[in-house]
Amino acid sequence: MQEIKALVFDVFGTVVDWRTSIAKEAETFLGQQGISGDGYKFADDWRNLYQPAMQACRSGERPYTRLDDLHRENLDKVLKAWDIQNVSEEKRQHLNHAWRRLQPWADSVSGLHRLKTKYIIGTLSNGNIALMVGLAKWGGLPWDAILGADVSGAYKPEPASYIETAKVLGLAPQEVALVAAHNDDLLAARACGLRTMFVTRPTEHGPEQKIDLEPEADWDVCANSLEELADKLGC
Amino acid sequence: MQEIKALVFDVFGTVVDWRTSIAKEAETFLGQQGISGDGYKFADDWRNLYQPAMQACRSGERPYTRLDDLHRENLDKVLKAWDIQNVSEEKRQHLNHAWRRLQPWADSVSGLHRLKTKYIIGTLSNGNIALMVGLAKWGGLPWDAILGADVSGAYKPEPASYIETAKVLGLAPQEVALVAAHNDDLLAARACGLRTMFVTRPTEHGPEQKIDLEPEADWDVCANSLEELADKLGC
Repeated sequence: MQEIKALVFDVFGTVVDWRTSIAKEAETFLGQQGISGDGYKFADDWRNLYQPAMQACRSGERPYTRLDDLHRENLDKVLKAWDIQNVSEEKRQHLNHAWRRLQPWADSVSGLHRLKTKYIIGTLSNGNIALMVGLAKWGGLPWDAILGADVSGAYKPEPASYIETAKVLGLAPQEVALVAAHNDDLLAARACGLRTMFVTRPTEHGPEQKIDLEPEADWDVCANSLEELADKLGC
Repeated sequence: MQEIKALVFDVFGTVVDWRTSIAKEAETFLGQQGISGDGYKFADDWRNLYQPAMQACRSGERPYTRLDDLHRENLDKVLKAWDIQNVSEEKRQHLNHAWRRLQPWADSVSGLHRLKTKYIIGTLSNGNIALMVGLAKWGGLPWDAILGADVSGAYKPEPASYIETAKVLGLAPQEVALVAAHNDDLLAARACGLRTMFVTRPTEHGPEQKIDLEPEADWDVCANSLEELADKLGC
């Protein structure tokens, strides 16, 4: 553990509560359109298109395409599926940029500030740079560096996304730890030689969440918040 | 000017005083080696190899190679030219990383904090991400994003370095301003559609400096410090 110099973070779900934030913006949008509908259902429908869209890039079916653009394509599909018409370009763009206005979990900002005193802290998210910078400005996330998909040109869990992130930091994989609320993300990072830190986020997917309720392997550190992670790392 | 959303900064010379910092580290190094020699001369000899090394990448003679690695090759050349032998690998690496320990100009940190309240602030430097993150941690530079060479895969003044930086920020070129102490950098940025802000740094190259003592074109804003730039931009 002594040799860890950088902590890189999964962001959606680990640092910010994407589902509640998107649901609230969707509710406002639906209200403006005069449609009665569940914002959480809208958020889940939108998010359900997330992995398939990235998979097309991972498989080589299409070139690497920024998440802002994938989100937008997916939004257009959801609007169509919900049979919502006559939405202006401006309104679609505003709603798409809801992904830049996600609220951090209550412990995220204070936890990151503490972790930053001892480590380089950066993003290792599938979100693109513009989206991540927007989120950081919105929520006050004090990143040292915005890394991840736009820098590696690869979507997690592709090995290149983890390996390139360590490389651009000028560090060996074992000098970098991934902090994530998702066991599969940590498994892929460990396979690339990174250290692993699990943070439980039991309501990322709402009160009925079934996955990632606990660590499923002997991750290097496990915590219930970024504040607790800072405690455990002596920050 | 109202549409500017991000300020991206040249770093060496504009934000940090590379020459004094490298000269001091070189003096310490030379003393340890039992060599009497001028640290400033050492710094200038090292820096004089900077543009030719990048030029080999720009011309396609060699692929894009990170500045940390170019600096290291150049250091080895300077040591050879100065006939300094028996320098351990560890010592060479420490001296090479002097580029991560450059002092900000007196107004840089406070100026950046003010500018950050109104704009996205990022690096648009030829320094690679690891080097820039090191500098930021060392000097307390509060960047929102580390951009530049490693992200664009191109060295300034190649157009791609400016154009790609705006693109990853999700902005049009005219929504981004380059802040630099070098007229040629600003000229290249303007040719790509970016806005331009000149900061005078009359001692970057020492007391005998002959170049960049004043703006050589009608740059959008000119200032003598980042504090004055913040004043002029109403931050």
